[in-house]
Amino acid sequence: MSTPVGSGNTNANQTVRPPGEMFTLENPVFCCYLFWATVLVVKMLLMSLLTAIQRFRYKIFPNQEDLFFKNLEVQFNDPHVERVRRAHRNDMENILPYFIMSLIYISTNPSVGVACNLFRVASVARIIHTLVYAVYPVPQPSRILAFGTMLLITFYMAAVVALRTLSFI
Amino acid sequence: MSTPVGSGNTNANQTVRPPGEMFTLENPVFCCYLFWATVLVVKMLLMSLLTAIQRFRYKIFPNQEDLFFKNLEVQFNDPHVERVRRAHRNDMENILPYFIMSLIYISTNPSVGVACNLFRVASVARIIHTLVYAVYPVPQPSRILAFGTMLLITFYMAAVVALRTLSFI
Amino acid sequence: MSTPVGSGNTNANQTVRPPGEMFTLENPVFCCYLFWATVLVVKMLLMSLLTAIQRFRYKIFPNQEDLFFKNLEVQFNDPHVERVRRAHRNDMENILPYFIMSLIYISTNPSVGVACNLFRVASVARIIHTLVYAVYPVPQPSRILAFGTMLLITFYMAAVVALRTLSFI
Repeated sequence: MSTPVGSGNTNANQTVRPPGEMFTLENPVFCCYLFWATVLVVKMLLMSLLTAIQRFRYKIFPNQEDLFFKNLEVQFNDPHVERVRRAHRNDMENILPYFIMSLIYISTNPSVGVACNLFRVASVARIIHTLVYAVYPVPQPSRILAFGTMLLITFYMAAVVALRTLSFI
Repeated sequence: MSTPVGSGNTNANQTVRPPGEMFTLENPVFCCYLFWATVLVVKMLLMSLLTAIQRFRYKIFPNQEDLFFKNLEVQFNDPHVERVRRAHRNDMENILPYFIMSLIYISTNPSVGVACNLFRVASVARIIHTLVYAVYPVPQPSRILAFGTMLLITFYMAAVVALRTLSFI
Repeated sequence: MSTPVGSGNTNANQTVRPPGEMFTLENPVFCCYLFWATVLVVKMLLMSLLTAIQRFRYKIFPNQEDLFFKNLEVQFNDPHVERVRRAHRNDMENILPYFIMSLIYISTNPSVGVACNLFRVASVARIIHTLVYAVYPVPQPSRILAFGTMLLITFYMAAVVALRTLSFI
């Protein structure tokens, strides 16, 4: 969020780039996507480890072969484990479509400033979503706002791409 | 589904395209992918909103901090909410792998007519799947047919890609 | 896993490739990705069919319109069906982020030997994961090892990409 972006410098940011070079390290928009997509991939994978931590802390295991302690039975529906699992599922529902949407949005050659800031805001919003949902539950509407931020950004990118490719319906 | 495609015009549709230009707006196959992938991303994200609508309509919330009304308790297993969630999960199981499969299928330079119609049919089939599963439940085999259509198309693309790259096993 | 890779031949494997040609069939790393991503897509989609097989074998259906046999009621929480569904969900949690991570990792022009072997090991590990989780349950730590293999490979790729694009934060 460090680059100041106004409507005035959109043209300055917009480089005439050969179409074959969109998905290369020469393109700053693609590099910014690479960095923040990587952050979100790591964040999502850490949810698996957070689930595992909760499972060991509360000794809640869903499979017979996972009962690492004596006198345990398989258990489901523990609220601490299920909360992390709901947050993880919400990540899959929102971040995975965002990965595809933002990747193909790059092909429309968006302004560097606009695109990079969208990637930054969307990614930070999802990190906040995880913190207020799975790590330390916070009263609403904090989670709804974090959820809505990436959702709106994805819808914006969808509008841009759909308008550019509408004739291929 | 407007372009008539016969086996005869495959060669006419097949353009000799430089390999670096597959994932650019110069390639009509990629443009068609962009449009229909965008439609499916939006469709998937609307499932979250449909779930939210059902949660508010039947006042079923899974987290303590979501109890927006008085005298409510967290509740799971409401059939109306769970139906939408199953449809959403089915979307993730099928559409997300399809996004990757159809994207990499483009790199094999398929015939414009064949590829575009596959994208169109698969996308419309999944929209029908959502309608008959989550919006207005309809007797089988409507859902199985809608589900099977994208599944078979993804398997077809997988066969094309795997045969082209078999030597890289 | 057939190509012998040592630290010595990294330079020999590393071709000076024009940046616009990373995601083309000219690039052996991309071809190897295509093949193994296709294998994993097919593996994931087969989980849906495995779930369906278990549902018909144990006559467990979650929707009113799926009750293909007389005198059945909708049922959830059958251990055989839920085991396959947990394995399928674990696939989505791990393989789908891996698809994006390994795809963008290719843009950093990695050594052919290293990248191809990472794709091979990660894919075979997830096939083993499915076998020991959903097809024939095997005592731990077999599943943890199979799970950890792709997880570590994804983290490695994330580190490579993040370090290359750190200035775009």
